[in-house]
Amino acid sequence: MSKIHRTGANDILSQAVEYHGFVFLQGVVPKNLTQDIKGQTEEVLAEIDRLLEVHGTDKTRLLQAIIWLSDIGNRNAMNAVWSAWLPKGAAPARACVEAKLADPRILVEIMVTACR
Amino acid sequence: MSKIHRTGANDILSQAVEYHGFVFLQGVVPKNLTQDIKGQTEEVLAEIDRLLEVHGTDKTRLLQAIIWLSDIGNRNAMNAVWSAWLPKGAAPARACVEAKLADPRILVEIMVTACR
Amino acid sequence: MSKIHRTGANDILSQAVEYHGFVFLQGVVPKNLTQDIKGQTEEVLAEIDRLLEVHGTDKTRLLQAIIWLSDIGNRNAMNAVWSAWLPKGAAPARACVEAKLADPRILVEIMVTACR
Repeated sequence: MSKIHRTGANDILSQAVEYHGFVFLQGVVPKNLTQDIKGQTEEVLAEIDRLLEVHGTDKTRLLQAIIWLSDIGNRNAMNAVWSAWLPKGAAPARACVEAKLADPRILVEIMVTACR
Repeated sequence: MSKIHRTGANDILSQAVEYHGFVFLQGVVPKNLTQDIKGQTEEVLAEIDRLLEVHGTDKTRLLQAIIWLSDIGNRNAMNAVWSAWLPKGAAPARACVEAKLADPRILVEIMVTACR
Repeated sequence: MSKIHRTGANDILSQAVEYHGFVFLQGVVPKNLTQDIKGQTEEVLAEIDRLLEVHGTDKTRLLQAIIWLSDIGNRNAMNAVWSAWLPKGAAPARACVEAKLADPRILVEIMVTACR
């Protein structure tokens, strides 16, 4: 049995879980909910950068992403921040759909899987 | 090519699929739809326990979870059952969003990935 | 570090990403949006076949699938195409929920994970 490494485990989730070279991140949401979609997406991606670094990897090694938007109409604005953040030629497989999220002020939630 | 092991395969899905030490479970929904969110969540988690055991693992080795609630307002009630069920310090990376599910009486669907 | 192979990478996503024997596909949507749910599902599954083949695998080696329908009422019609396409006894672990998708004419989006 390979070992599982967990970061930021609390009662309901771990912020990141690593096993066998794969790194699973939580669905990251912003903390500052007064921001617009641009600001919220930037905050979420900065937190993803931080968690990937904790697990010895980075955004050049993303495998899969699921993005939930509270309003699919924010897709272009989110994509602008997302594509500026992504390294050239290193985008993950991705799905992006609308869903009501935990707090009505949360506009975006992003869950990625990466590898070391 | 490593072998794939499938449990409960029918025409549209397998209840669990194992490959290379990873165990992918279906989005589990309750069968008894007369239950409230507490009862439905308990039934779903019991079924997840059963499927993990079939594949030689258990809830201490969860990697990722996606939870869909038909009403995000049930999040706290679901979380109470979920966190009581989770072993201390072993929570998976998780996302939880609202979605309309296959039957209007289904309040919760949970899809987890674990490892052996 | 094992190598990551990406197919069809653009500014926002890769169509498929392979790592360590696992193949992650994008959430595939149809291009011809004048089709009904049957036609759209057929187009999506044909594209999944194509992407799996590019990565040296096929629909007998599906591990996980998430299916989003713009109207959960289309579930039976989608399932008819889906189950006819799946090889006997080789269904992936699956979740299927409703979500508003990138374009109101898109009726179905399917994201699968397979292995070589």
